[in-house]
Amino acid sequence: MKKLILIRHGESEWNKLNLFTGWTDVDLTENGIKEAYEAGKLLKKEGYRPEICFTSYLKRAVKTLNNVLDAMDMDYLPVEKSWRLNEKSYGAIQGLNKAETAEKYGADQVKLWRRSYDVQPPALAMDDERSPRRDPRYNELSDSEIPLTEALKDTIARLMPYYNGHILKAFEKHDEVMVVAHGNSLRGIVKELRQMTNEEIIEFNIPTAIPYIFELDDNYKVQNHFFLGDPEVIARKMQSVANQASKK
Amino acid sequence: MKKLILIRHGESEWNKLNLFTGWTDVDLTENGIKEAYEAGKLLKKEGYRPEICFTSYLKRAVKTLNNVLDAMDMDYLPVEKSWRLNEKSYGAIQGLNKAETAEKYGADQVKLWRRSYDVQPPALAMDDERSPRRDPRYNELSDSEIPLTEALKDTIARLMPYYNGHILKAFEKHDEVMVVAHGNSLRGIVKELRQMTNEEIIEFNIPTAIPYIFELDDNYKVQNHFFLGDPEVIARKMQSVANQASKK
Repeated sequence: MKKLILIRHGESEWNKLNLFTGWTDVDLTENGIKEAYEAGKLLKKEGYRPEICFTSYLKRAVKTLNNVLDAMDMDYLPVEKSWRLNEKSYGAIQGLNKAETAEKYGADQVKLWRRSYDVQPPALAMDDERSPRRDPRYNELSDSEIPLTEALKDTIARLMPYYNGHILKAFEKHDEVMVVAHGNSLRGIVKELRQMTNEEIIEFNIPTAIPYIFELDDNYKVQNHFFLGDPEVIARKMQSVANQASKK
Repeated sequence: MKKLILIRHGESEWNKLNLFTGWTDVDLTENGIKEAYEAGKLLKKEGYRPEICFTSYLKRAVKTLNNVLDAMDMDYLPVEKSWRLNEKSYGAIQGLNKAETAEKYGADQVKLWRRSYDVQPPALAMDDERSPRRDPRYNELSDSEIPLTEALKDTIARLMPYYNGHILKAFEKHDEVMVVAHGNSLRGIVKELRQMTNEEIIEFNIPTAIPYIFELDDNYKVQNHFFLGDPEVIARKMQSVANQASKK
């Protein structure tokens, strides 16, 4: 049985401040680093031995992965990084407070921007100081690939070539693969794996730094999936993500 | 002008205890992490922008690189890891105290084991608990590639295919390349770059976590080379490496 381990990064500075982050490259908090390390210790204790890892270009994901690997004593594992695993772009609302944005535009509108399948937040201008075009790490992207805003649908569209061409492809050589990424890029992968509808995915939240294990058969069909860890902690974390738009 | 940045890992637990480390996968100290972070801040301040990085399979090098990149806000850079960049194997003296070993075998013998070009320390048995054969990360190595002991000459022999085929090759696509590795694997690279004799390399020590910059022309000939940082700190660190065998 093949195993795919998905992990959302630990708490970031802007998770804590309750700001829309998207492609902004904010750091982990001390707590986020601790969460990551604990996820690694748990994976090690449960006998997981990934052979290759994938993460995004954003430091909260890279550093979560670094700490997971360190806790597993597997710092030496190969790691591939790709912008295609980045968080959904929140466009022009990046940097705004989630609760204040909900007050201004209404909770329903903000929920659509955050969680709907196909409603995009307002777009950044290409020359906005927050635009990825101004960041040299994205020089390899063509203008049409630079996301100025994204609905989940757009995130999935730029993610899938990488998911199929690198992550699933890694199972041709390996039995255990780990992906450390973001709430929405992972929701895209989970939607695909679990064949969820556009409506089902809206209500599905992924807790921070909890390993989400998928057991796959040789045709990459899901045989089993579960979160690893204390069910109470997991339930509390999932609820906390769902409540963000109403938290000041 | 192409730039190759070499960095020896920061202080490790066994540097601090003055033990022969070699392929033993010991961690960085708090001070080692701080040294790495400071090297990264200095590289950033001086305008270095590596495009790809190489490191070993040993966590003291991987974590030094992770901290250098984090200090540079370049956590997203591609990193390739290889066992060929590992420290020289010290064979059966791995885990022994450097000063005690010098008392037992004589300072001259220990200097040969540590620094000579072609004298190997006593070998590990293939089934010794310290043998790389017992560590799954080295499953890809054939028995003849598993080092049970190494002189610098042997370290260079297994390093060179990687240096030529990956590190120098990276300059075909990139202008700035960073390698974070170990005292002896880096001495091998420096010997090659500076065309040092087998005698010259014996007296050459590399300080921990000080970026060593090589400026190369298009034929990879060295035009200039220098350590980055405070000359007094660098001199003190180089002296401290040279003195290890007499330190209790």
